Amino acid sequence: MTAHALPAPAAALYEAIAGLPIISPHGHCDPAWFADDMPFPDPASLLILPDHYLFRMLYSQGVALADLGLGVPPDQRDPRAIFRVFADHWHLFLGTPTRGWLEHTLQRTLGIETELSPDTADAVFDQIDATLKRPEWRPRAAFVTMNIARLATTDAALDPLSAHQGAAQDWPGRILPTFRPDDILNPARPGHADRLRTLSQMTGADCAAYDGFLDAIRARRAAFRALGATATDHDVPDLMTLWLPRPEIETLHARAWAGDLSAQDAAHYYGHMLTEMAQMSAEDGLVMQIHAGSRRSTNHALLDALGPDMGADIPVAMDWTRGLEALLNRVGNDPRFRLLVFTLDESAYARELAPMAGHWPCLRLGPPWWFHDSVNGIRRYFDRVVETAGYFNLAGFNDDTRAFLSIPARHDMWRRGVALHLADQVDRGLLGAADAARLAPWLAHDAAVQAYRLADAA
Amino acid sequence: MTAHALPAPAAALYEAIAGLPIISPHGHCDPAWFADDMPFPDPASLLILPDHYLFRMLYSQGVALADLGLGVPPDQRDPRAIFRVFADHWHLFLGTPTRGWLEHTLQRTLGIETELSPDTADAVFDQIDATLKRPEWRPRAAFVTMNIARLATTDAALDPLSAHQGAAQDWPGRILPTFRPDDILNPARPGHADRLRTLSQMTGADCAAYDGFLDAIRARRAAFRALGATATDHDVPDLMTLWLPRPEIETLHARAWAGDLSAQDAAHYYGHMLTEMAQMSAEDGLVMQIHAGSRRSTNHALLDALGPDMGADIPVAMDWTRGLEALLNRVGNDPRFRLLVFTLDESAYARELAPMAGHWPCLRLGPPWWFHDSVNGIRRYFDRVVETAGYFNLAGFNDDTRAFLSIPARHDMWRRGVALHLADQVDRGLLGAADAARLAPWLAHDAAVQAYRLADAA
Amino acid sequence: MTAHALPAPAAALYEAIAGLPIISPHGHCDPAWFADDMPFPDPASLLILPDHYLFRMLYSQGVALADLGLGVPPDQRDPRAIFRVFADHWHLFLGTPTRGWLEHTLQRTLGIETELSPDTADAVFDQIDATLKRPEWRPRAAFVTMNIARLATTDAALDPLSAHQGAAQDWPGRILPTFRPDDILNPARPGHADRLRTLSQMTGADCAAYDGFLDAIRARRAAFRALGATATDHDVPDLMTLWLPRPEIETLHARAWAGDLSAQDAAHYYGHMLTEMAQMSAEDGLVMQIHAGSRRSTNHALLDALGPDMGADIPVAMDWTRGLEALLNRVGNDPRFRLLVFTLDESAYARELAPMAGHWPCLRLGPPWWFHDSVNGIRRYFDRVVETAGYFNLAGFNDDTRAFLSIPARHDMWRRGVALHLADQVDRGLLGAADAARLAPWLAHDAAVQAYRLADAA
Repeated sequence: MTAHALPAPAAALYEAIAGLPIISPHGHCDPAWFADDMPFPDPASLLILPDHYLFRMLYSQGVALADLGLGVPPDQRDPRAIFRVFADHWHLFLGTPTRGWLEHTLQRTLGIETELSPDTADAVFDQIDATLKRPEWRPRAAFVTMNIARLATTDAALDPLSAHQGAAQDWPGRILPTFRPDDILNPARPGHADRLRTLSQMTGADCAAYDGFLDAIRARRAAFRALGATATDHDVPDLMTLWLPRPEIETLHARAWAGDLSAQDAAHYYGHMLTEMAQMSAEDGLVMQIHAGSRRSTNHALLDALGPDMGADIPVAMDWTRGLEALLNRVGNDPRFRLLVFTLDESAYARELAPMAGHWPCLRLGPPWWFHDSVNGIRRYFDRVVETAGYFNLAGFNDDTRAFLSIPARHDMWRRGVALHLADQVDRGLLGAADAARLAPWLAHDAAVQAYRLADAA
Repeated sequence: MTAHALPAPAAALYEAIAGLPIISPHGHCDPAWFADDMPFPDPASLLILPDHYLFRMLYSQGVALADLGLGVPPDQRDPRAIFRVFADHWHLFLGTPTRGWLEHTLQRTLGIETELSPDTADAVFDQIDATLKRPEWRPRAAFVTMNIARLATTDAALDPLSAHQGAAQDWPGRILPTFRPDDILNPARPGHADRLRTLSQMTGADCAAYDGFLDAIRARRAAFRALGATATDHDVPDLMTLWLPRPEIETLHARAWAGDLSAQDAAHYYGHMLTEMAQMSAEDGLVMQIHAGSRRSTNHALLDALGPDMGADIPVAMDWTRGLEALLNRVGNDPRFRLLVFTLDESAYARELAPMAGHWPCLRLGPPWWFHDSVNGIRRYFDRVVETAGYFNLAGFNDDTRAFLSIPARHDMWRRGVALHLADQVDRGLLGAADAARLAPWLAHDAAVQAYRLADAA
Repeated sequence: MTAHALPAPAAALYEAIAGLPIISPHGHCDPAWFADDMPFPDPASLLILPDHYLFRMLYSQGVALADLGLGVPPDQRDPRAIFRVFADHWHLFLGTPTRGWLEHTLQRTLGIETELSPDTADAVFDQIDATLKRPEWRPRAAFVTMNIARLATTDAALDPLSAHQGAAQDWPGRILPTFRPDDILNPARPGHADRLRTLSQMTGADCAAYDGFLDAIRARRAAFRALGATATDHDVPDLMTLWLPRPEIETLHARAWAGDLSAQDAAHYYGHMLTEMAQMSAEDGLVMQIHAGSRRSTNHALLDALGPDMGADIPVAMDWTRGLEALLNRVGNDPRFRLLVFTLDESAYARELAPMAGHWPCLRLGPPWWFHDSVNGIRRYFDRVVETAGYFNLAGFNDDTRAFLSIPARHDMWRRGVALHLADQVDRGLLGAADAARLAPWLAHDAAVQAYRLADAA
């Protein structure tokens, strides 16, 4: 990326926004890094092992995951050998955002001048390693160096939030938790009934009763808000929302408590609970996020051997129109409610999501998610959503990453994508140059602040 | 739009077609305007209130529909205040076709030189108001001023067509009705059984019997044709066509007459009736239009309070291949039959509709519909359909609007889209410049005349 | 095509690959041509009659198929008259790849200088006819003239392969068979049970028993491999794969042998057999191809009158994620297994196929298939798959054609598409020029060799 210049009109728009502070309102960094502020570990553990974008590509070309340290006990891993395996396959990433992100991270963020190749694996490894040991690359200092203003993590409902408390104590206002309650809402998740009991203990509410369960959830939401949370998040495999009559949901809850729901009843229960969460969001102001359409862990052998998140999550087609209908009809006209949605099914951009966002007052469209968070993915997103939803029903950008050092790279790719899109619109006579210049910083920065209500955050 | 020039090669193609007469073979203008030729009302009532593109966007950003006069009795509306609310939110439309259309309408069509903004709301309102009071902006004069050659409206099967008769009397050959019989064909529509009785009274046929019902429909089609109609139109929520054995459809019809069909039987009945309509089209030459895939009134609170068409119609995925199979196998090889289809599911363009149009002799592809009637939507349409369907299986353009004054703007956007597409094809080596120059006027004008058989019209 | 130049940066990339030898690893040419090496027949029989791209378009515009010789006994056809009908409708193909292919074939491949038009039909016919009678346009010589290195045909499991034996005898190593066993695997195909008996006779195995049936299939695969086959191919209408317990599949097989399976059981049986084929591919190294999503012969009148392949095959939406799950979980992690997939549902490119190819070690994405094998189809393909799958999970190009003389044209269109894509990536800052120059020949030539394991072929 860094070696290649943008065409001239896009370049001017890009230059004006490239240096704006980074708002990262949704992602998966570890809050403990900022509580402890301990140095990051070796390059492989930081850059390779947690990045499923990277290791899925290597696996697709026959590299054994064990050669990348996955499933290997940490004390038996050889970070340098792992980095060599990765460098040997660097060409596989040509044309992918992964390559752009990593080039940006190494060259622009960390200042490594040696270009990565099979021949330079050791040299680059050593340079990264030396860099990470410098005090300015400790987590809190890196946060500042990388020009990040706010960073939200994603945290289970039962998370005690001690890391967030730690960071807030002497380094407040930077790291926000996000309330992700699927573990206690979706009975299809293994261990669900046990977690309801833990939730009772944690909150003192009687979660065997439906009312007590709702109270317990409200208590957890309040705890998250107290530490700066402005949003919730849901990972929904098959989108269906419902609003069930009270006796029916109470019956289902009793059976969920007993761990005794059929697959279909579990789906109905979860569909109703999503609508309950929308109602609670209208009440307490937490922005609701729905990420829908990822079929998780489709490679069962990898799941059994190594667990989830091994690169085998594959999207499926999604019906947003009917899927959200119950939730929206229950809460969607409430001016207090805010819902951000993320799709892996791009065919829904123009067909469903842009028309919905251009109508429902609660709805904002999240940026391109996951496989679509890429230069061409961003182009397709703008192409398909803007004409129906406008710009002001968009939620700006979020990086959604667990790779902390790649955050500037990912926001940079978005900002380049914004510049390329706006320049193309001007070129084709759809937008004036002055309007494009005003929209660029909004899309790069302000939209996310507004969508996630971060201006109101503590 | 108007301030921004097209790139040079597209500009030349555009200039050659910008002034062609406008053929508007499908839309929703009120024929009474042209029968009565009374001046148009105030700017808000003409430009804001009937335009769901406009008020859905404002609603999506928290503007109350009552502030736009919706649900407010006409005598309690303040047109100037409504226009101010709209002008205050003008920035929301950046990047949307709505903005392009309105800019064109104000500046190019009405000659308003003041640029719309929150500060100029009153001035622009006054200028529009003064313009509309001038004789040359009475409906018939405006029709001529705007260079319209033919305008088709859309009219229910039970419409007495008195407005069309009024216009035809002393101003013939301009305004054509279109036969839209869903109200008497689709039992899922409230009041269906009552309308069958009205149809009996209107035609003298015994609609309790299936044969009488078919005769009554033929009578209404003949009445429409007598006033210049060349086409029918269907609004199909979930596409399914069938051909049922005679005893079965007679039984279903008896139950439809009695208002006693299950939802599934109603769908089967309607699916069969669509095929009957195709057969009648083969017989009487009326071009059949199917607009499929809009889930209507998904916001139930708005439907209850304000009725349909409040901006909450949202598309769903459509299966054209299987959905049209029964109809096409019954009538699709008949050289007399012509079917135009319109989709809100762009994924069907290249997957289903272009391959179907490139095979079935009856089939022509309608232009991008509704949310896809936009500069980038037009680009996607050409990109996905031409290589398989060619240009000559396309139906040209129709504006599908109820906003009369926006008709030149909408055709202008199509013509710009045609120019941009053809210039891009030439640039990429896919088309010679001479062929592009020949195709431009065909796409801008001739294709619609041919598709709708307007050359044969009275 | 030939008259129009590519933009400069793409032109340089194109020039470097335009002359590379042609690898044609999947198509439908007749191997008998190369066994017999008899002159090709007249222009119409060679260029018009076998090309459903051509006659489907003419049929869509009202040309009777009989006027093109379809359904007419060969001795009653008038090739010159057929060619005139085609030339009269040449304008219908503007903007289609068919036009580009035929222009290339006539001008560049056959050296016909007269431009095709209604007026020149006879002259062009005569020039083609004269050309085809020259010795350098006999099949084997044409193969060399056209710079083809390898050509794979597609052959039914029961094909005795005598043509391949004939060609191999004195002209070895050019023509390879491909094992297409759907006729003996899919009970939904008419005559399935009879063919199982033929298979028994052909192989000596007892196909009434499931084990014997598997042995017979293995024997046929070995026979294909002995003549150079490196791949199998499946035409799957509705994608579903399964792995059934042994007693269950044995029961289904017994009923398949008896010709007594319900539609659903037939689908389950076929879904299981696809997984068996994947296992055999892991064992014997034949690359497995799946072409899924074409609904065959949707025009029943044409099917009854003229048989299949009359231009009425229409795509339907496909669920690749769930459809391949059973097969991939059974064999997909096996390093010996290679699976190439082809879709007619482009919405699956970015949503399903690229994510799957970027994970499963067995999977490579086939090039744009059929209606999507076009300049813009190729652009959409690269746009949607590269960022997630990279370049090295792609299978290069195959022409999939039965129109032998169009092979150079089709590969030329791919190579232009490759050049346009790579130049655009460089222009937008996503790829360095040196990387683009390295990727071009890989995409034009090497990828197909690797994907189809042709370097290992005899």
